[in-house]
Amino acid sequence: MTKKIRAFAPATIANLCCGFDILGVAVEQPGDEVEVTLTEETGIRLVNIVGDGGRLPREANRNTCTVAIESYLRTIDQTDVGVEVTLFKNLPLGSGMGSSAASAVAGLVAVNHLFGNPLTKLELLPHAMEAERIACGSAHADNVAPSLLGGFVLVRDYHPLDAVPVPTELQLFVGLVHPHIEVKTADSRMVLRPTVSLRDAIAQNGNVAGLILGLTTADVNLVGRSLKDVFAEPYRADFIPGFHQAKATALQAGALGCGISGSGPTLFVLATSEELAQRATREIKKVFQSHQLSSDLFVSKVNRQGAQVIN
Amino acid sequence: MTKKIRAFAPATIANLCCGFDILGVAVEQPGDEVEVTLTEETGIRLVNIVGDGGRLPREANRNTCTVAIESYLRTIDQTDVGVEVTLFKNLPLGSGMGSSAASAVAGLVAVNHLFGNPLTKLELLPHAMEAERIACGSAHADNVAPSLLGGFVLVRDYHPLDAVPVPTELQLFVGLVHPHIEVKTADSRMVLRPTVSLRDAIAQNGNVAGLILGLTTADVNLVGRSLKDVFAEPYRADFIPGFHQAKATALQAGALGCGISGSGPTLFVLATSEELAQRATREIKKVFQSHQLSSDLFVSKVNRQGAQVIN
Repeated sequence: MTKKIRAFAPATIANLCCGFDILGVAVEQPGDEVEVTLTEETGIRLVNIVGDGGRLPREANRNTCTVAIESYLRTIDQTDVGVEVTLFKNLPLGSGMGSSAASAVAGLVAVNHLFGNPLTKLELLPHAMEAERIACGSAHADNVAPSLLGGFVLVRDYHPLDAVPVPTELQLFVGLVHPHIEVKTADSRMVLRPTVSLRDAIAQNGNVAGLILGLTTADVNLVGRSLKDVFAEPYRADFIPGFHQAKATALQAGALGCGISGSGPTLFVLATSEELAQRATREIKKVFQSHQLSSDLFVSKVNRQGAQVIN
Repeated sequence: MTKKIRAFAPATIANLCCGFDILGVAVEQPGDEVEVTLTEETGIRLVNIVGDGGRLPREANRNTCTVAIESYLRTIDQTDVGVEVTLFKNLPLGSGMGSSAASAVAGLVAVNHLFGNPLTKLELLPHAMEAERIACGSAHADNVAPSLLGGFVLVRDYHPLDAVPVPTELQLFVGLVHPHIEVKTADSRMVLRPTVSLRDAIAQNGNVAGLILGLTTADVNLVGRSLKDVFAEPYRADFIPGFHQAKATALQAGALGCGISGSGPTLFVLATSEELAQRATREIKKVFQSHQLSSDLFVSKVNRQGAQVIN
C-alpha cells in the first residue's frame, strides 16, 4: 500500500446557461491538488494549505477537502487511521469556478487511491456533496459531479441522486475570465425569483433539451443556439460590471456561447477551437478593463477524464 | 406527372410528460390518409371526408388539410391549379392524438409528391403549422413536426422555428388509450398556471434533459426515470376520470412511463415491447371501465419514417 498520494481535480462550470442547477462541465486547467499521507497517529489533520493566502479554514472539520475525506473514511469503516492532508489551492475562491468542489474531489480521489479504490467515482459523489454542504449550505452536485467524472454531467434529480455523464464527440474548448470582484453565493441566490413564467420555463426547457441533443449528436450549431438562460442570468448580470457588453463581444469574437460560470462572477465561453476561446476571453478581459476591473484568463479543453491521481 | 396521390400521416403524442410544449413523437398506427387529385378546374375542393361522422368543416378554407394545401400551393407559386381532396379520417377528433396535424401533414405530403417534391419535409412544416393555427388558434409544431418527420422531434424554439429530430437506437412501443370523453384544448389550456415555481421549473428541466439523454444514448431506464411532468399533468389530470389510478396501474404493468397525450383526454404509455404496451393499455382501459367510460386502444411501434405516400 502506497503511503502518500497526490490527486488533481479540475475547475468546473455549473449551470452552462440553460442548464441552471442541473448541468456542469469540467475543464482541463486550472484545478486544485491534494496530497494525502497515511500516518501512525490517528485522525485527519489538514497540515498545510498552499496558495489560498490564508483565507480558507485550517480546521479539518470546516475545510471542504477534509470534510469530504472524513465522510469517506466513515463509509469505508476506516475511522482509526491517521491521514495528513496538504491542499494546493490553485483555484480562486468565491469565483464560480467550483473551487470548493475541486478541493473536496481531489481529496477524495487521493484518499480512495490510498485505500486501493474501494469506491467508484460515482460512489465518491455523496462525500463530495457533503463537503459542498459545509462550503455553500447546500449539498449540490453540479460542480462535484463533473470535477469527479470529467466532461459534461447532468444532475437530473437529487431524490435519489441521479448524475449522468453526457457523452459528446465534439472537441470543445472552454475559456474562463475571472474578474477581481467577489460575489457571495448567498447574494447571487437571493436575486433569483422564486417563480418563473410558464413561457420562460418552456423556453429554458427547449434550450436545455437542445443543448443535450446538440452534445450527444455532435451538432455544434445546436449547442450554440441553445446556450441561453432566462432563470438566473437576467438577475445575476447586475453583479458583473459590463456583463452584457462582455457577452456580446465574446459571441462576436466567435464563441459558441457565453454565460456566468456557476453563480459568478467568472464568465465562461464555449468555443470550437483554442484560438476562438482565447480570442473571446481576451475580448471579455478588455471589456472588464474598461470598467477598471482586472481579470485572470484560463483557456483549456473540456476535460474528459475528471479528477486523477498524479503521482 | 401523376394525377392522383394518396398519403398517410401518423398520430402523434405531444408533450411526452417532461417535454411539455417542446417534444412530440409519432406512432405507426393509427393515422389519417389524404388523396389529392389534379383537376382541370382551378381551385382547391374538399370533395369528401370519410370517417368523421360529419363533424369536420367541409369548406376548404376551414379544414386543416386544405388550409395546409392552399398555403403550400401559394409558396410554390401554383395558385392556378385545380386539386380535389379527399380526407380519410381515422383519428378521433379532440382526442389529443394530433388529429388535425395528421390531416394537414397527409395533405401536404400528397400534394408535394404530386408536384415532384419541390419542398423538403422540413420546408413543409410551416404550412402544417398554418393549419394548426386554424384548428387550435396557435401555430404549434409539436404534433405536425413528428407526424411529418417521424420519431421523436424537439421543437426548441419558434423564433425562428427550430425543429430537430431526436435520434434513438431504442425500439420503443407506444400505447394510446382514448376514453370517450371530449376535452376542449381551450379548457385544458385554461387550467395551466401562468407561472411555475423555480423549483418545479428546474425539476422539469432535469427531466427533459434526462429524456433527451436517455433517448440519444439508448438508456432506457433513464428515459423511464425522466417521464414526469409538473407543468400540466397536475392540473389536467382532473379532466380525466381515474387518471392517477390509470397511470399507477400502467406503470405497475411494466410501462416505462405514462402521461396525457397532448392536451388529452387520451393517455399514452411508452414501453420496451409490444406486449408490455398492450398490457399497460388494457389495465388503463379497465380503470376507465370502472369509471363507466368506454375507450379505444391503439398499440404500435414508434414511427421512424413519418408521413409517407402510400400508392
